[in-house]
Amino acid sequence: MVIVLKNNVSKKDVDTLSNKIREYGVDVRITAGENCSILGLVGDTSLVNREKLEMDERVDRIMLVQEPFKKANRKFHPENTVISLKDKIIGNGNLSVIAGPCSVESEEQIIEIARRVKAAGASFLRGGAYKPRTSPYSFQGLELQGLRLLQTASKETGLPVVTEITSLRTLDLFLESVDIIQVGARNMQNFDMLKELGKVRKPILLKRGLSSTIEELLMSAEYIMAGGNEDVILCERGIRTFETYTRNTLDLSAIPALRKSSHLPIFIDPSHAAGHAWMVEPLSKAAAACGADGLIIEVHNDPANAKSDGKQSLTPDDFDVVMEKLKKIADIDGREVK
Amino acid sequence: MVIVLKNNVSKKDVDTLSNKIREYGVDVRITAGENCSILGLVGDTSLVNREKLEMDERVDRIMLVQEPFKKANRKFHPENTVISLKDKIIGNGNLSVIAGPCSVESEEQIIEIARRVKAAGASFLRGGAYKPRTSPYSFQGLELQGLRLLQTASKETGLPVVTEITSLRTLDLFLESVDIIQVGARNMQNFDMLKELGKVRKPILLKRGLSSTIEELLMSAEYIMAGGNEDVILCERGIRTFETYTRNTLDLSAIPALRKSSHLPIFIDPSHAAGHAWMVEPLSKAAAACGADGLIIEVHNDPANAKSDGKQSLTPDDFDVVMEKLKKIADIDGREVK
Amino acid sequence: MVIVLKNNVSKKDVDTLSNKIREYGVDVRITAGENCSILGLVGDTSLVNREKLEMDERVDRIMLVQEPFKKANRKFHPENTVISLKDKIIGNGNLSVIAGPCSVESEEQIIEIARRVKAAGASFLRGGAYKPRTSPYSFQGLELQGLRLLQTASKETGLPVVTEITSLRTLDLFLESVDIIQVGARNMQNFDMLKELGKVRKPILLKRGLSSTIEELLMSAEYIMAGGNEDVILCERGIRTFETYTRNTLDLSAIPALRKSSHLPIFIDPSHAAGHAWMVEPLSKAAAACGADGLIIEVHNDPANAKSDGKQSLTPDDFDVVMEKLKKIADIDGREVK
Amino acid sequence: MVIVLKNNVSKKDVDTLSNKIREYGVDVRITAGENCSILGLVGDTSLVNREKLEMDERVDRIMLVQEPFKKANRKFHPENTVISLKDKIIGNGNLSVIAGPCSVESEEQIIEIARRVKAAGASFLRGGAYKPRTSPYSFQGLELQGLRLLQTASKETGLPVVTEITSLRTLDLFLESVDIIQVGARNMQNFDMLKELGKVRKPILLKRGLSSTIEELLMSAEYIMAGGNEDVILCERGIRTFETYTRNTLDLSAIPALRKSSHLPIFIDPSHAAGHAWMVEPLSKAAAACGADGLIIEVHNDPANAKSDGKQSLTPDDFDVVMEKLKKIADIDGREVK
Repeated sequence: MVIVLKNNVSKKDVDTLSNKIREYGVDVRITAGENCSILGLVGDTSLVNREKLEMDERVDRIMLVQEPFKKANRKFHPENTVISLKDKIIGNGNLSVIAGPCSVESEEQIIEIARRVKAAGASFLRGGAYKPRTSPYSFQGLELQGLRLLQTASKETGLPVVTEITSLRTLDLFLESVDIIQVGARNMQNFDMLKELGKVRKPILLKRGLSSTIEELLMSAEYIMAGGNEDVILCERGIRTFETYTRNTLDLSAIPALRKSSHLPIFIDPSHAAGHAWMVEPLSKAAAACGADGLIIEVHNDPANAKSDGKQSLTPDDFDVVMEKLKKIADIDGREVK
Repeated sequence: MVIVLKNNVSKKDVDTLSNKIREYGVDVRITAGENCSILGLVGDTSLVNREKLEMDERVDRIMLVQEPFKKANRKFHPENTVISLKDKIIGNGNLSVIAGPCSVESEEQIIEIARRVKAAGASFLRGGAYKPRTSPYSFQGLELQGLRLLQTASKETGLPVVTEITSLRTLDLFLESVDIIQVGARNMQNFDMLKELGKVRKPILLKRGLSSTIEELLMSAEYIMAGGNEDVILCERGIRTFETYTRNTLDLSAIPALRKSSHLPIFIDPSHAAGHAWMVEPLSKAAAACGADGLIIEVHNDPANAKSDGKQSLTPDDFDVVMEKLKKIADIDGREVK
Repeated sequence: MVIVLKNNVSKKDVDTLSNKIREYGVDVRITAGENCSILGLVGDTSLVNREKLEMDERVDRIMLVQEPFKKANRKFHPENTVISLKDKIIGNGNLSVIAGPCSVESEEQIIEIARRVKAAGASFLRGGAYKPRTSPYSFQGLELQGLRLLQTASKETGLPVVTEITSLRTLDLFLESVDIIQVGARNMQNFDMLKELGKVRKPILLKRGLSSTIEELLMSAEYIMAGGNEDVILCERGIRTFETYTRNTLDLSAIPALRKSSHLPIFIDPSHAAGHAWMVEPLSKAAAACGADGLIIEVHNDPANAKSDGKQSLTPDDFDVVMEKLKKIADIDGREVK
Repeated sequence: MVIVLKNNVSKKDVDTLSNKIREYGVDVRITAGENCSILGLVGDTSLVNREKLEMDERVDRIMLVQEPFKKANRKFHPENTVISLKDKIIGNGNLSVIAGPCSVESEEQIIEIARRVKAAGASFLRGGAYKPRTSPYSFQGLELQGLRLLQTASKETGLPVVTEITSLRTLDLFLESVDIIQVGARNMQNFDMLKELGKVRKPILLKRGLSSTIEELLMSAEYIMAGGNEDVILCERGIRTFETYTRNTLDLSAIPALRKSSHLPIFIDPSHAAGHAWMVEPLSKAAAACGADGLIIEVHNDPANAKSDGKQSLTPDDFDVVMEKLKKIADIDGREVK
């Protein structure tokens, strides 16, 4: 931690402040400049009451040297986190694909799609049962029945199931019936939910909030991990910018950035980012080439009649084409789609 | 609703599509251009399956003519919503001030602050009991004890209490002990929470999300109102932009925008937007001059030792100065601070 | 300047690097931590080759302690800059208003508007002669004839003239005929233009770029001032954010921020920020209450037939009302509109 | 063009307005709804004075159906633009790489880098001679000498030269000595410059502004094309968002978006977007997989001593590795790096 003092703080005041800070158990070194002095703090600076110091009238600014996340930090956990689930493995260098419809709509729909995405090489089935919608007047999902249908499709195909939780009131149901619990972008900083998910023993797919920084995403992962659940999958799904051509702006730089800062697996959701089915192929290829550990792609057997997000869903035939391309791109780096 | 068709859709196809749309019970008028045709839909267009139409291969784009919010819409409710609470009135043209510390810390603290802000002319007491914090390692609030202390301070001063709910699990406690329930920026699209708050009979102070549009704020208000609770107070508290000098960018244009679109009262939170105590006075004055119905201002009796957000808290003495200025600005438009 | 070293740099390497840095003529103090060391540099750090150090493999990060702008910095120039121009004074505590049409269209138009805005209390006449337009197919201004008409209106009313320069090729013309030269938002980082304007002896009204930070605005002012022209007026006119209700988001926090960082006068342009005439009154009042030194407001005698930006122009009658309100708000702080 | 009228405009007023609009020579069809009427305009709507109509008191809103760019629009020019330059071809399906240092610093430097990037497979040499810098105190480039050194390196290697123009005063020099003229992000809306570049007969590499939309980028291309110069290369180089980990956020969705909207070649600059050399490889691969026509990559033989942007420059050895990967990715789609 570096503390920049205001101009013209007297030498005596600098010393008094330094001594006060030393009481937190850290070492303080003073760099006395002509215009202003700088205090360098070393030791366990987490013991320092930063907010109190920021209010000190001698202090101009505090600059953090260490990242505020620990359990999610690659510095303290250099090896990649690898998550095993049934016969699937995430984060071991291969490219894992989660695919399925935006919303579960019927048994036929979800089973047909599950079969097709499995045949194409997807490893996980996604499908929304509880849907967070901007408008109270939009379709809100099949809810409990949706969860049941996902289980049916999972039994039928062997694909583990990924679906979004929108309320802690359904947590027990999710623990029974879901393989990976998704936290949506709008709940990324629902800290009450994150704390509870820290207590469960299921992998969590944590989507980045629309206006959350990379550091904030890692702090939200830290909430879950601090509770004891270390199986967190990070997912970039587009951030909100001034550009309106796409629904959101997919931030693929997040892949190398997260890779450097953290050991957790990194997934990309090109479907929600773009909001246009015809953009999913190029963006999926880009994400794979950029080093993502996985992709989550919306596929619908009848997009024109989908109850939500049809506009961004691939048909199973389109999905076959994308998967073929992804296999070739993964192969360049000696990776497999599986 | 206006539907723009793709280039070169044949006249026959335009007719077929128009007839299909008429089955939704709306009237369709065709504008046939050389490059493309446009369909104008009138009648109850809420019956039209927009998502399905967007997927139609003849359709280029759908443009909405009506705003998607109804109960929050001034068009259907021209009179301002006025909320009465004990002896206080919000939204009747006066300027209401909510003040208090970021976090409730102790009985002495909250009572002393409550007395001072009341003496200065504030009408409501704020104070955080359950705190949503970016880091799991930060102070998370006094929780239940915090609620109790707010009640004590309220009894002592007569000021109704405003505090933030972070989990539905505490809803019953809030219903017993809180006068206005605040939904924080990070929960603005926690739709599960909004639905439940639609069932209660307490005013809701709904903060705009960091990256939420004005329309999305109104859609979240709509969720609460659709559930039957029409006492929603909208609160702008800064949006996330590229500028890092301030914590967030206070969007005062939201005041005239919301005033035109909606009949709900509009509050401004200058403390969280700026993140600097020394900016609170100019921004509070700006908000008052711009026509806000109320302000929510952080005040702490000892900012240097505050457990959270001391940097943006006014002292009671500073707050006195701000309130004097606000009274003069309100007076220009014949308004009172009360 | 603070240099954070990478983890596990050996003591010997720290010493070698420190000695190398001392060759720049600055003093270096080492704070040796367990995880990483920090170097505090004092003295004239402008001599240090920062980019080279950032590339040093021992360096993790460099944090600047001093702002990069000097001549625009209040630290080195505590008194407000006051600009005198004919019988007008800017920056002396009063509120100066620049008003006029987006584009000069005809002699009758500009003279009529000039008379009306002068009668209402404006001190300067604005009007576009050379118009930067997003589309090559839009009206590009009357150009030279526009400048001539502004001069005529200025003679007629005594109001000094403010207009935007879009090319250095017209600089001589501007020097002859314009009182304050405006640099538009899109040219805020046209460094070639800024350098030339540093050589002239006319005040420059420098508009903040749509996506420029406060620091970048001050760095562009620094370009002009470094050339020798110290009469720079800073102008906030809305920044680009995700919100689309308004054309841009007016950032009024920039007023206290710039006031603290710089001694230059601060103006606000509510017309371009909002893009809606009905928002100009509340935003102008907000800007005045927030402490702006001046406002620049679009006024047109016939907005419905304006050749550009009619939608955001006030009529002279509307402008009268706004000016009356502004006088009352200025009066609260003992300021005059003049 | 679709014109939405305000609520409760009388039938008579609708008819009067429609007749007035018909005078522009377009056809008007009326869709009369209960709440509001909609006018659909067909024919040559470029003749309609949109700004005037927007001011009409009966009009609520105008929605454009056609994109405002014509010459850059794929609708009117379905075939990709292919640019031939000496023995190089851009936009014919292959992947073209422009490489070189941020700034030209010396003859040895630029020749050594030119040789290395050519050997690795680059087709064009970049290097800054006139540098737009945020601070007036930073290195501003070797200017004329820089141009001469680029020519020398070009003769030595046969690589055509790409460099940025920052002032029209140097245009003649550029016409003599440069093969592709680059317009930097900060000059994307320097319309005066765009107009002049429309008159020259050299390809223009037009970089997207930091906060410019895809449509605005195409409108700036339109300025150049409207002047008669149709050889415009579009270049995405990162947009400004709230994220600060990277210098800017690379928007790869712009590739499919521009591909659909326009026939012009699309390049990506991963170096400036990220601001970190270690991100250039993954982002370059992503751009290639996403379908870019070319890349512009910063390479320096001694990044640690570069006079600008060393932090984001690859070494020639790193560049070799990137080029090998790019060849494999291009090969998947049957493309060649050349």
